[in-house]
Amino acid sequence: MNATSHLLLQLALILGLARLLAWLLGRLGQPPVIGEMIAGFLLGPIAFGALAPELHRWLFAPEHLVALNGISQIGLVLFMFVIGAELRAPHGARAGLLAAAWIGVLAVVVPVALGLGLAPLLHAHYAPDGVGFWPFALFLAVSLGITAFPVLARILKDRDLTRGAVGQLALAAAAIADALAWILLALVVALVGAQGWQGFARALVGLAAIAALGFVLLRPLIARWLARHADDGRPTGGVLGVLLAGACAMAAATEWLGLHAVFGAFLFGLCLPRDDRLLEILIERIEHVAVLALMPVFFALAGLNTSADAFAAAALPMLGLVLAVAIAGKLLGAGAGARIAGLPWRSALTLGALMNTRGLMELIVLKVGLDAGVIGHELFTMLTVMAIVTTLMTSPIVGWLTRGRHAAPQGLARESQ
Amino acid sequence: MNATSHLLLQLALILGLARLLAWLLGRLGQPPVIGEMIAGFLLGPIAFGALAPELHRWLFAPEHLVALNGISQIGLVLFMFVIGAELRAPHGARAGLLAAAWIGVLAVVVPVALGLGLAPLLHAHYAPDGVGFWPFALFLAVSLGITAFPVLARILKDRDLTRGAVGQLALAAAAIADALAWILLALVVALVGAQGWQGFARALVGLAAIAALGFVLLRPLIARWLARHADDGRPTGGVLGVLLAGACAMAAATEWLGLHAVFGAFLFGLCLPRDDRLLEILIERIEHVAVLALMPVFFALAGLNTSADAFAAAALPMLGLVLAVAIAGKLLGAGAGARIAGLPWRSALTLGALMNTRGLMELIVLKVGLDAGVIGHELFTMLTVMAIVTTLMTSPIVGWLTRGRHAAPQGLARESQ
Repeated sequence: MNATSHLLLQLALILGLARLLAWLLGRLGQPPVIGEMIAGFLLGPIAFGALAPELHRWLFAPEHLVALNGISQIGLVLFMFVIGAELRAPHGARAGLLAAAWIGVLAVVVPVALGLGLAPLLHAHYAPDGVGFWPFALFLAVSLGITAFPVLARILKDRDLTRGAVGQLALAAAAIADALAWILLALVVALVGAQGWQGFARALVGLAAIAALGFVLLRPLIARWLARHADDGRPTGGVLGVLLAGACAMAAATEWLGLHAVFGAFLFGLCLPRDDRLLEILIERIEHVAVLALMPVFFALAGLNTSADAFAAAALPMLGLVLAVAIAGKLLGAGAGARIAGLPWRSALTLGALMNTRGLMELIVLKVGLDAGVIGHELFTMLTVMAIVTTLMTSPIVGWLTRGRHAAPQGLARESQ
Repeated sequence: MNATSHLLLQLALILGLARLLAWLLGRLGQPPVIGEMIAGFLLGPIAFGALAPELHRWLFAPEHLVALNGISQIGLVLFMFVIGAELRAPHGARAGLLAAAWIGVLAVVVPVALGLGLAPLLHAHYAPDGVGFWPFALFLAVSLGITAFPVLARILKDRDLTRGAVGQLALAAAAIADALAWILLALVVALVGAQGWQGFARALVGLAAIAALGFVLLRPLIARWLARHADDGRPTGGVLGVLLAGACAMAAATEWLGLHAVFGAFLFGLCLPRDDRLLEILIERIEHVAVLALMPVFFALAGLNTSADAFAAAALPMLGLVLAVAIAGKLLGAGAGARIAGLPWRSALTLGALMNTRGLMELIVLKVGLDAGVIGHELFTMLTVMAIVTTLMTSPIVGWLTRGRHAAPQGLARESQ
C-alpha cells in the first residue's frame, strides 16, 4: 500500500460519503454543503474513529494527510477565486455599500462583544494549559464573529438568490464582516505568536498593496488579454491555466502576509471583468471540481481534529450556551445593522440568518486557533458543532423568510445538489 | 512561509511556465502538451536549478513535494478517467481489434528486442552500483516499448483526429501496447523487488477481477443511475462527485495491485455509457482542470528528477543512440503491424509515428524505475529527453502524413491550446 493508493482511497471515501450525505440532506431541503460538512464530521474520531479505530488510524495517519491537506487548500483557493469573480457591486452603489457596511460591522462587533462576556466561563474549563485569559478570550470572541463567506455564497447559489438584492447585500456584508473578523483574527494570532504589532501593520499594508496592484494594474490588463484570447466568446483552454496561476500567486502572497490564502484568491477573482459570457464558462469549469471534489476534503480534515469529549454530559450545557450566544450575536448584530440601514424587518431577519452561517470559514479559523495552541480539541469540537448547527439552520430560516419572493427555477436548484 | 504558501507558489510557477511554453510551442504548430513537458524539464536542475540553485533548493525541497506529488497523481487519475470515458470501439469491430492487436503488440515487441540489444552497452556506463544485467536490461527494454496513451490521445484530440479511423486504431493499439508494456514493467519491478512470480500472477488475476466487476456489474448500474440523475439531459452536480469517487476507488485498487492507478481510472471511464450528451458535459467539466492545472504538475515533478550529467560531452553519443533505437523500434514495429493488418503505407507510417509518442507514460515508467533503483538520474534524464523528442516529432510527422485528409475545424484545434 503506497502513498498514492492511500490518497486515492481517502478521496474515494471522502467524496462518496459527502455525496451520500448531501443527497440525504438534500431530501430534507438542505443545501449540499451541509451534507458535506456532516460527512467530514462523521469521518472524524467521533463516528468513524469510534466505530473502527484501527482502520481510522491507518487510513488517516498524520503522514498520509500532507497531500490531502494541500488538495483542500487548493480547493479553497479555487472556490474563493470563483466567488470573487462572481461578486457584483450592490445595486444603487453608495446606499448599498453603506447598508452592507452597517450589517457587516455590527454582525462582527455584537457577537465579539458577547463572546468576550462568555470567555471567563469557558476559559476556566477549556483553555489549554498556559494560555492566558486575553488571547483565549479574543480568539473565542473573533471565532463567534465569523461569517462563512463561501458557505453563505453557496446557500445563496443553491436557492438562486445570488443576484437578488438581499443576496448581493448579504455577500457584500459578509465580505466586510469577513475582512474585519480576519483582521481581528490576525491580531489575535499575532498576539499569541508574540509577533507583536509590527506583524499586524505589515499584514495590513501588504494587503492594501496587493489590492492596489490588482485593481490598478492587473484588472485592465486581464480584461484586455481575455478579450484577445476568446474564440466566438469562448475562452481558449490556456486562458484558464493562466488565470489559475494568477489566483495561486495572489493567494500565496496573502498567505505569506499571515492573512489566509483565500483572501488573495478572492481578490484575484475580483480583478476579472464582470458580466461576461466568457467568465461564466470559466466559472462553470473551475467551480464544479472545486466545489464537488475539493471542499469535501477540507471538511474531512476539519472532522479529523474533533474530539468526543465535547459530548460528555458535563460539557453539554456549555455547548448549548456557546450555540445560543453565537446565534443571538449574529441575529442581533446583523439584524440591527439592517434596520439602521432602513431595511424592512423581513429582510433584516433574513440577513441576520444569513450572517449566522459560519460553516467553512469558521472551520478555517478554528484550525488556525488549534494550530496556534489557543484552543484545545474539546473547544474546537464544540465550535465545529456550532458551525454546523448555525449553517444547518440558515437554509430553512432563509427559505421560510423568502418564500414566494424568489422562486428559484427547479432545474437550477437541483443542479447544485 | 508556511506549507500552503509554498504549495501555492510552486503551482503559480508551474502553471505559469507551462502556459507560456505551451503558447510559444503552439506558435510552432506543436500541441500544448509539449510545451508543458518542456516547462517541467526547465523547472528541473538543468535550467532553473542551474540558474538559481538556492531558490530552486528552497522552492522544491523534498518536504515540500508531498502535496505536489499527490496533486499530480490525482491529475493523472482524472485525465485517464476522461480518456477511458471517451474511448469508442474501433470501426468494424473484429477486423479493427485484430489490426489494433497487430500494431499494439509489434509496437512493443520490436522496441523491447532492440532495447535488449542496446542494454550491454548502457549497463557498463549507467547502471547504478549493484544492479545486475537482467533487471537493468529488461527495464531499459520495456521503457523503450512504452507508448504514451494520454499524450497520444491529447495529440489526436488537438488535431481533432480522435474519432477518425486512424485515431481510433491508434488509441486501441496504444491501449493494447500500454497494457502489454505495463505488464512487462510489473514483471521487471517484481524481479527487482524480489516479489517473484506470485506478485505478477496476483496483479493479473486482480486486474481481471476488477475489469469483470466493472463491465459486468458497474457498467449497467452506472448507465441506469446516470439516466435517472439527469435534468434535461444535463447531469446534476452530485453525479460528478460520485463518478470521481468511483474513479478514485478503482484507481486505488489497481495501484494497490502494483499496477498503476491510471489503469483503474481508465477502466472506470470505460464503464460509463458511450455516446451521451451527459457524458460530454462530465468530460468537459473534469478535463479542463485535469489537463490544464494538474498535468503540468506531473511534468514538473519529472523535471525535478533529471540530472545535468546526461548532457556531458561523453554522454551525448549515448543519448543519440538511445534516441535512434527508440524511434526505429516504434516505427518498424507499429509500421510492420499496420502493414500486416492490411493498412496502406501512409496509414502505417502515421500509426508508427503516433506509437512513437512516449511523453507522459514514459515519465511514469521512468519514475517507477528510478524509485526501484534500476536506473540512476543520468539514464533517467536521457530517457526523459528521448520521451520529449519522440513526442515533439510526432505532431509534425502526423500533420504532414494526414495533411488534407482530416481538416480539423480551426475553432476546435485552437480550443485546446
